Amino acid sequence: MKLSELTWPEVAAYLERSPGIMIPTGSTEQHGPIGLIGTDAICAEAVALRAAETAEAIVAPTLALTPAQFNLGFPGTISVRAQTFSAVVYDVLTSLAQQGFTRIYIVNGHGANVAPIRSAIHDAVHDLADSFVVRLRSWWDYAEADDLRRNFYGAWEGMHATPSEVAITQALGRRVAGAEEPPAPLSEAYLKDHAGDLHGSAAEHRRRFPDGRVGSHSALASPEQGAEILSAAARAAAADYLAFLKEA
Amino acid sequence: MKLSELTWPEVAAYLERSPGIMIPTGSTEQHGPIGLIGTDAICAEAVALRAAETAEAIVAPTLALTPAQFNLGFPGTISVRAQTFSAVVYDVLTSLAQQGFTRIYIVNGHGANVAPIRSAIHDAVHDLADSFVVRLRSWWDYAEADDLRRNFYGAWEGMHATPSEVAITQALGRRVAGAEEPPAPLSEAYLKDHAGDLHGSAAEHRRRFPDGRVGSHSALASPEQGAEILSAAARAAAADYLAFLKEA
Amino acid sequence: MKLSELTWPEVAAYLERSPGIMIPTGSTEQHGPIGLIGTDAICAEAVALRAAETAEAIVAPTLALTPAQFNLGFPGTISVRAQTFSAVVYDVLTSLAQQGFTRIYIVNGHGANVAPIRSAIHDAVHDLADSFVVRLRSWWDYAEADDLRRNFYGAWEGMHATPSEVAITQALGRRVAGAEEPPAPLSEAYLKDHAGDLHGSAAEHRRRFPDGRVGSHSALASPEQGAEILSAAARAAAADYLAFLKEA
Amino acid sequence: MKLSELTWPEVAAYLERSPGIMIPTGSTEQHGPIGLIGTDAICAEAVALRAAETAEAIVAPTLALTPAQFNLGFPGTISVRAQTFSAVVYDVLTSLAQQGFTRIYIVNGHGANVAPIRSAIHDAVHDLADSFVVRLRSWWDYAEADDLRRNFYGAWEGMHATPSEVAITQALGRRVAGAEEPPAPLSEAYLKDHAGDLHGSAAEHRRRFPDGRVGSHSALASPEQGAEILSAAARAAAADYLAFLKEA
Amino acid sequence: MKLSELTWPEVAAYLERSPGIMIPTGSTEQHGPIGLIGTDAICAEAVALRAAETAEAIVAPTLALTPAQFNLGFPGTISVRAQTFSAVVYDVLTSLAQQGFTRIYIVNGHGANVAPIRSAIHDAVHDLADSFVVRLRSWWDYAEADDLRRNFYGAWEGMHATPSEVAITQALGRRVAGAEEPPAPLSEAYLKDHAGDLHGSAAEHRRRFPDGRVGSHSALASPEQGAEILSAAARAAAADYLAFLKEA
Amino acid sequence: MKLSELTWPEVAAYLERSPGIMIPTGSTEQHGPIGLIGTDAICAEAVALRAAETAEAIVAPTLALTPAQFNLGFPGTISVRAQTFSAVVYDVLTSLAQQGFTRIYIVNGHGANVAPIRSAIHDAVHDLADSFVVRLRSWWDYAEADDLRRNFYGAWEGMHATPSEVAITQALGRRVAGAEEPPAPLSEAYLKDHAGDLHGSAAEHRRRFPDGRVGSHSALASPEQGAEILSAAARAAAADYLAFLKEA
Repeated sequence: MKLSELTWPEVAAYLERSPGIMIPTGSTEQHGPIGLIGTDAICAEAVALRAAETAEAIVAPTLALTPAQFNLGFPGTISVRAQTFSAVVYDVLTSLAQQGFTRIYIVNGHGANVAPIRSAIHDAVHDLADSFVVRLRSWWDYAEADDLRRNFYGAWEGMHATPSEVAITQALGRRVAGAEEPPAPLSEAYLKDHAGDLHGSAAEHRRRFPDGRVGSHSALASPEQGAEILSAAARAAAADYLAFLKEA
Repeated sequence: MKLSELTWPEVAAYLERSPGIMIPTGSTEQHGPIGLIGTDAICAEAVALRAAETAEAIVAPTLALTPAQFNLGFPGTISVRAQTFSAVVYDVLTSLAQQGFTRIYIVNGHGANVAPIRSAIHDAVHDLADSFVVRLRSWWDYAEADDLRRNFYGAWEGMHATPSEVAITQALGRRVAGAEEPPAPLSEAYLKDHAGDLHGSAAEHRRRFPDGRVGSHSALASPEQGAEILSAAARAAAADYLAFLKEA
Repeated sequence: MKLSELTWPEVAAYLERSPGIMIPTGSTEQHGPIGLIGTDAICAEAVALRAAETAEAIVAPTLALTPAQFNLGFPGTISVRAQTFSAVVYDVLTSLAQQGFTRIYIVNGHGANVAPIRSAIHDAVHDLADSFVVRLRSWWDYAEADDLRRNFYGAWEGMHATPSEVAITQALGRRVAGAEEPPAPLSEAYLKDHAGDLHGSAAEHRRRFPDGRVGSHSALASPEQGAEILSAAARAAAADYLAFLKEA
Repeated sequence: MKLSELTWPEVAAYLERSPGIMIPTGSTEQHGPIGLIGTDAICAEAVALRAAETAEAIVAPTLALTPAQFNLGFPGTISVRAQTFSAVVYDVLTSLAQQGFTRIYIVNGHGANVAPIRSAIHDAVHDLADSFVVRLRSWWDYAEADDLRRNFYGAWEGMHATPSEVAITQALGRRVAGAEEPPAPLSEAYLKDHAGDLHGSAAEHRRRFPDGRVGSHSALASPEQGAEILSAAARAAAADYLAFLKEA
Repeated sequence: MKLSELTWPEVAAYLERSPGIMIPTGSTEQHGPIGLIGTDAICAEAVALRAAETAEAIVAPTLALTPAQFNLGFPGTISVRAQTFSAVVYDVLTSLAQQGFTRIYIVNGHGANVAPIRSAIHDAVHDLADSFVVRLRSWWDYAEADDLRRNFYGAWEGMHATPSEVAITQALGRRVAGAEEPPAPLSEAYLKDHAGDLHGSAAEHRRRFPDGRVGSHSALASPEQGAEILSAAARAAAADYLAFLKEA
Repeated sequence: MKLSELTWPEVAAYLERSPGIMIPTGSTEQHGPIGLIGTDAICAEAVALRAAETAEAIVAPTLALTPAQFNLGFPGTISVRAQTFSAVVYDVLTSLAQQGFTRIYIVNGHGANVAPIRSAIHDAVHDLADSFVVRLRSWWDYAEADDLRRNFYGAWEGMHATPSEVAITQALGRRVAGAEEPPAPLSEAYLKDHAGDLHGSAAEHRRRFPDGRVGSHSALASPEQGAEILSAAARAAAADYLAFLKEA
């Protein structure tokens, strides 16, 4: 259930039976030559919406405008400052807690979101105390989804414009051809040092990754694989969310 | 064309032929007993997407989390502070200008957005100077759409959960029955004094408008009317946008 | 009564009989070759002070340092960021509400003030709830004053360095000669697209309006007309303020 | 010359011959039973305007809304947060430097202003580097004025609602009778520990100083003394300002 | 070499031969009944100082005041907001980059620091572009140190007031007796869900962990083990830092 | 007692007998050719720690990263914006007040800290009211210490890299030779106009004071003098702190 498609009396009735809500968080940034600008938002929203069908949860609007300064060298990227994004998350948590949504489950699709979301949670809990609990998951954190992407793509999963995320968007709609040559592979060190999208400046990032793929061979993606990964992630998210609701 | 569904090389090619982009802005707040929480975002996005088909424009992700503190007394409303929303708009303008989108056209669907958007434009222009121009329109500003809603609903259009916006959402999907009794009508003075959603606190607002309709008889809406209003607004938006691109 | 010229026991006594206060808001920016830098502040303050005589209201200090980045290309203009001005208004509202001034009436003289004032009200009401109510008027919103300026100057009223505001300052003191040639007239489109002082950068604004008049033929002003407009606006403001105090 | 009463071409001509400007800073807060709410602003503005006559300087609008939280327990006080006031000063310095006013002379009348003004200068110089120089003086810093107030009132000058500032406002206009009994005298320790208006909360401050006088016997003031102090301060300010303009 | 104990000409000479600097980041918060309030800062500083001896690096002052709101229920904890800490880190990065320290290596000792540091890096890189590179490591990230703590303490390492960090502080000075009973062990789920110190409010946290140990059996610590862990971490940090300096 | 070296139960026991805490505040900036970068922090921390021995007080971690933009032209200086430093102080005061430390005594060693600390106190008291009291002293404010430095160095004490502060650091550890020639002496006017470190930009400051000494003949310092000054300051601080605790 999308929050946006309910009336307020329907939300009021829902709150009688559940304090939970899901929030998808993505990005609006280049995803290589065949990946879509909205890939992270599309994936996170799809996982949340499917999980919410099983879990009978409400899904808030997707936060798609997030920090991605390192990709501003590629047309189509929109980046908001980390401090701005933290303020948005802080305000959303405040509204939801005040509304009675005391179990807030964030389904994330963009590595650079994790830090400002955590910062916002810290400050919101400081100010609002025990009025809500947040759980934060990136969809690739679910073992079921993670196993599949490792099986399908191995090291070619890479860091950005990954075949797994491209596959999910293909399963949901548009498929772009091209990029058949693999990108330069990433070193172990690069993977470790830049986890969480700790990349350099827009200019440096484009110099280093000229077509936008960061060690990811996007062209390995297929819609069938995407459907499988999406199902696995959604099943895991639903189960995890339901367990979250049951915690003391 | 949704920005989120393009690849960056497609955006790069687009920028070769056009510096324009549309941004829909809505809200996530109660819209009375039969209006959807996402009404303002749904309407603004639909107008922009249809106009963009005609105008061959790119449409950025909809800004759906915006200031609506007066509606926090109704479950399902999410409000971000005006200062936070201004920061988001500021960052989006900065990214777009830097990307080469120098003609930015905002299609708005929520009265309370106008002030923080204007504030953000002021400060962004101060800091970034002549690198971009913004045009801001609420979809009911277009004479064609405004005439229709006046003809269809007269004074029952009201201020919030208006039959015209409800009609547009009905034309696009879900239709909720109920609320057949009209709300209390608004005085001329109320309309003037509270334009731009200059309402009181969440508690006061719910006391005054117990079912969330602010002088609007939502139940007068029909999907057919909605389709007509939407078409009119989209036509006008396309023409206005194209004229905007041509300005010196 | 100027707040600045009262003692605190006098204010305490006033608050026993009235919860109302007026705040004039202006600007400090160029007003063309014969208009004064302080025109907007002078006009708003004069309207408020005269209205306050009739309405027996206290008038707070005039907020004269406000957003006007588009005029920074003309010497003498001082602009504060919209976000800064919002913070000032937020703090002033907070102080006044805490002091017992729960009916706050803003008399505005500068188009660019409206957006940040509205943003500040939104956030202050969110945080302080039902502790106060604000009414915001620009002096030209009063029908009596608006009619006069239309009658006197027609389309030559324009947008900035208007003969009506220049006339009011002439009625109050200094009259500068010159600028006898009319400026370039504004198109309908310009008037609509730039309402609320949604102008471009300082450099662009000066290029487009080289002597600072934005479609306004300031030289049509006379002190007699100014006195008439001021009286009309002050009468209307007093009546409107008294009605505001009586609202439930 | 008040900036507010000049036209922009007059300011442009002035800047040909001088880079200097004066800014008075005051407050809007209780000043005891016979002192005016605007005392600090009235004094600072008067000193600046008289000095400016001698020095042929432009005087910017007075900053009268400043930090005074400790006085919010007394009706009529308006306090803006120190961080807000710093932001205003930062923006004003930025505008003036950009306009060509590179020698900015602040005439202060309120102890609590000094800290946030200094903070703002620090950050503005960091960001704008050598584009301007600021000199900050409180009017009682001038030896000529300080000597007079010590001679006239000795220890009864105290810290707030001082006879010297009350005298200046009497010289300029309104004189309120009363408060003939002296307040409790301040200890040396209190004077030292609370310099710069480092007072406690509004509630604590009112408890400790029930009529608002902080060790100051305001009733010792006379208009004649006020005129003398004002003249002395203005002469000193003019000389100091002219010396400031001549510094390398 | 501590930066604080050098003269500026010594720093200038250092910058001739190296662009690197280390910054330790810790916390000021309860660490259970026998752990010191400054544990995280003491550990991070010790690792950095020892590594710097080997690597001939300068070590900046330790950032010891950081976000820890969840521990405010225990006396002695000081927490700064995540947004404040991000601002500090942003400013420090800006100063260092401007000074010529273009390779900045952060040695962290507090889980909750990671998110606001990452946010600050994102925004600083956005604003300052390619002028510096940051590497962020928590000392337990080094395999050599991590292996030791797993070998010594197994699951009793836990999350907070860990025997490994207590052991390091014992090796450096003070050893407090007590807490011989183990705390309640943590579930796998708790470890995963609260990684990065994503804890609840101060009240909730103290209720859940009444003596401040979060699954960590601090009393297993010995100074000898601490010395061993510290050496291992320092060796790894030195090697990692030197490799960082050599990266293109 | 350093807070960082206590356990939380020890802090809890302390709070049973005392509500007081000391906070040293310094800087990280050049101190001339023979002064240490950390001079201000080293001095403030030493005074506080020694005073705390006598007064049986807890000493919080030293705030060593503070505003010093004017020294950024000298390698090794780190400056945080005044607004950032104010935010840190605000948060620290908030934590301490909430913890039961209601008598907060700041021992300062850097002139530019005074303004942002005062601003932070103003805003924290506004928000937190009577929950705490702050006393702010720079160590040279104590008459005993001030007399010594005047006797030892007279006018050569100057403003920055003063022999007295250099002497204290020598007494505590490192002594650097050199700078035997005196710097250019300061005029009375310079001393007055730039008190509180109201200096110009980094570039200007380095131009004017090429080796970083601001009128101070650092080489006059000896460790013996330093020990004497430190003892005097610490004795005075202890007495002043104890008196502060006893105030109503």
